[in-house]
Amino acid sequence: MAAEKIPYKIYLSEDELPRTWYNVRADMKTKPAPLLNPATGAPMGYDDLRPVFCDELIRQELDNDTREIPIPTEIRDFYKMYRPAPLVRAYCLEERLGTPAKIYYKFEGNNTSGSHKLNSAIAQAYYAKQQGLKGVTTETGAGQWGTALSMACAYLGLDCKVYMVKVSYEQKPFRREVMRVYGASVTPSPSETTEVGRKILAEHPGTTGSLGCAISEAVEAATKTPGYRYVLGSVLNQVLLHQSVIGCEAKTALDKYGVKPDIIIGCAGGGSNLGGLISPFMGEKLRGERDYRFIAVEPASCPSLTRGRFAYDFCDTGAVCPLAKMYTLGSNFIPSANHAGGLRYHGMSPVLSQLYHDGYMEAVSVEQTRVFEAAEQFARIEGILPAPESSHAIRVAIDEALRCKETGEEKTILFGLTGTGYFDMVAYEKFHDGKMTDYIPSDEELQASFARLPKVPGQA
Amino acid sequence: MAAEKIPYKIYLSEDELPRTWYNVRADMKTKPAPLLNPATGAPMGYDDLRPVFCDELIRQELDNDTREIPIPTEIRDFYKMYRPAPLVRAYCLEERLGTPAKIYYKFEGNNTSGSHKLNSAIAQAYYAKQQGLKGVTTETGAGQWGTALSMACAYLGLDCKVYMVKVSYEQKPFRREVMRVYGASVTPSPSETTEVGRKILAEHPGTTGSLGCAISEAVEAATKTPGYRYVLGSVLNQVLLHQSVIGCEAKTALDKYGVKPDIIIGCAGGGSNLGGLISPFMGEKLRGERDYRFIAVEPASCPSLTRGRFAYDFCDTGAVCPLAKMYTLGSNFIPSANHAGGLRYHGMSPVLSQLYHDGYMEAVSVEQTRVFEAAEQFARIEGILPAPESSHAIRVAIDEALRCKETGEEKTILFGLTGTGYFDMVAYEKFHDGKMTDYIPSDEELQASFARLPKVPGQA
Repeated sequence: MAAEKIPYKIYLSEDELPRTWYNVRADMKTKPAPLLNPATGAPMGYDDLRPVFCDELIRQELDNDTREIPIPTEIRDFYKMYRPAPLVRAYCLEERLGTPAKIYYKFEGNNTSGSHKLNSAIAQAYYAKQQGLKGVTTETGAGQWGTALSMACAYLGLDCKVYMVKVSYEQKPFRREVMRVYGASVTPSPSETTEVGRKILAEHPGTTGSLGCAISEAVEAATKTPGYRYVLGSVLNQVLLHQSVIGCEAKTALDKYGVKPDIIIGCAGGGSNLGGLISPFMGEKLRGERDYRFIAVEPASCPSLTRGRFAYDFCDTGAVCPLAKMYTLGSNFIPSANHAGGLRYHGMSPVLSQLYHDGYMEAVSVEQTRVFEAAEQFARIEGILPAPESSHAIRVAIDEALRCKETGEEKTILFGLTGTGYFDMVAYEKFHDGKMTDYIPSDEELQASFARLPKVPGQA
Repeated sequence: MAAEKIPYKIYLSEDELPRTWYNVRADMKTKPAPLLNPATGAPMGYDDLRPVFCDELIRQELDNDTREIPIPTEIRDFYKMYRPAPLVRAYCLEERLGTPAKIYYKFEGNNTSGSHKLNSAIAQAYYAKQQGLKGVTTETGAGQWGTALSMACAYLGLDCKVYMVKVSYEQKPFRREVMRVYGASVTPSPSETTEVGRKILAEHPGTTGSLGCAISEAVEAATKTPGYRYVLGSVLNQVLLHQSVIGCEAKTALDKYGVKPDIIIGCAGGGSNLGGLISPFMGEKLRGERDYRFIAVEPASCPSLTRGRFAYDFCDTGAVCPLAKMYTLGSNFIPSANHAGGLRYHGMSPVLSQLYHDGYMEAVSVEQTRVFEAAEQFARIEGILPAPESSHAIRVAIDEALRCKETGEEKTILFGLTGTGYFDMVAYEKFHDGKMTDYIPSDEELQASFARLPKVPGQA
């Protein structure tokens, strides 16, 4: 059979948009560890989580068994406004690299939030609306998640309160403005509007905030405001579930052309994109049906998988959230100030952490100047100006393609291009002007952070 | 025959990407008037234009007869990186407006230049490369055209010199940075690097520049640098030709579902998007095969069609360019400082000007606060954050849809959504904070400008 020429972009039809999310936990022999109550150390069940999360989302969070969970029609209708997302064959990049490798990327940047975050934002907002809530609270760092949630809430007529890490609030006023266009209220964090915010400000006057602080504030605001719940853009099992739409679409598109990837690469901050991208492929691997190499790429300045501890830790700085078992740098770890992109969370999705721990996935860390080199190269060749986060995956995809060039192997590489860098031009400018530096935390710095990990029964 | 449900987004396949551009001039009974030599008043032919423009582009500029001009394979291959562009059925907007009208928009923002400008940029860069040139020069205002040209030149390995209106250079540093990522050199205009720039600076010290000034500088730089030519992102016949890919795709997509638009709406600055969108439809109208209403939407602060003169005028401020017969506000007209979006060119495409003059097209002008109201409404309902330019078309599409609601008419409306507003958040912020004002030039102001129109033989 003559191989059909694969187009530059494989677009699925709306009918081919997945009807179910893929819950990779159903295939895991060792399930991700449960969330623990920080006060008692007991696993948190449905009722324990109800003050914080929406009911249906808790069910999804705790469901380790159902492999396929139906996507409600209303969410699928919203998906149709910007999905299916294209799977792109990087013909130009392959040619320029002179590699025998075949490179594909799943591009999630063709929507106003500029990233894949919208896939989970609409799901979480939908279930909040279903439950009759007035609104939701959340935190945002670089602002992609906050933007996505604002868009979803505007669409559904829900109120949206975003706590934005203060340094981003000030350095990325345009992201803030996008959220305001969508009707969200945006508060720089830490703020005086919450108890935990005031406490952090008292202890660290002049702090520019962190994702961990903003989470604490958003959780407090949700639990203290009647009719509100807290939603989160990464890390949680439910988020990976929603993001599996990325992997399901990618797999359907590749299957149409009989293509099987050898290597699947994604950037990893909290793990939402990587987890979503690999889910159905990982399912095949876990069931022993097919082998794939999975590579998580993280910044050298925030290396939770490659240098963190696999331990129970707080998800936030204010220690108001449940404990999660994950690869972590410690909830007080903040990447150095010269770190440009996102991917700055101290921990990692418990699902991905477990898979990594069990040897189903590899991880590498890369320095940001090499990341921006890849970003600029990619932009000039493939046209799309990538987000710094996404460029971590580009860097390693290019490295793997160049390795194929050396060995002559015709491997098929799939990577996740999570979004666009239109709001990251300050970082691009720094790189361009030779003012970008790298930073790798010292072992001492990490040891000091590990020493502050919470004491949990059964954890050394 | 049961009507097939029309999807949210109609994506053509790569095979359906147009193979020819549509030259609407072939259908015009009265052709657009020729460019004139400003010194002699004589029509400019192929040889006269060669110092400024690329050879093949001059042929396209002067060709009023060939209806379909083949798109070279290399350009089609580049198009495949971001085209076919989606034709979107605005189901959500229709529902929210409660209108019986059916609304479609052709969305050109899914590429890093953020607009349709890339369609002509790659064509012009390609012909420059074909001719063995080293590089091209151009001007840019808001920066979309400069970005598009930078992308095209990076792809082809051509040098790209952009003269950016000084006020934009300073207010939109991120646009400038995107161009730098793509390897372009960006000079704020007026500058000391050209004779005309120095002259303008001497006469108007402290000027923040205008599109007309930047054109003068770019043309001078091209004609004085061996191996360079000047390229332009709008107004010219060749640009409308390349942009016809928008209309051809839109028509193919609509034809697939048997849909015929009643009203076609586009924003109009120099006319590149509107001209491209309407070309094949206008062809049918000119040939008497079918009737359509075409509506050009321009800013009330820069109303070339609705309040300008149909006359020969300079295309630039420095009067180094040929004279073009068009609707113009006078080459010294500069929109008031409170004008937020693009669409600030003093003239209008000679093709569109002639069609408007001959009664084939309507034009309306809208004030910018009403434009931003529509933009915000559209963003919240349809998800996409539109460019201010595009939002002019949205405004009138909504107005027409609401008129249908009053009359009960089920009209089909097609409008051009030229791009995204990610680099226009300062304007959105102004609007949101209630600080945006409107400005309508007085009759006296326009009369004073008209008084300075050049004396041309046979022109009153």
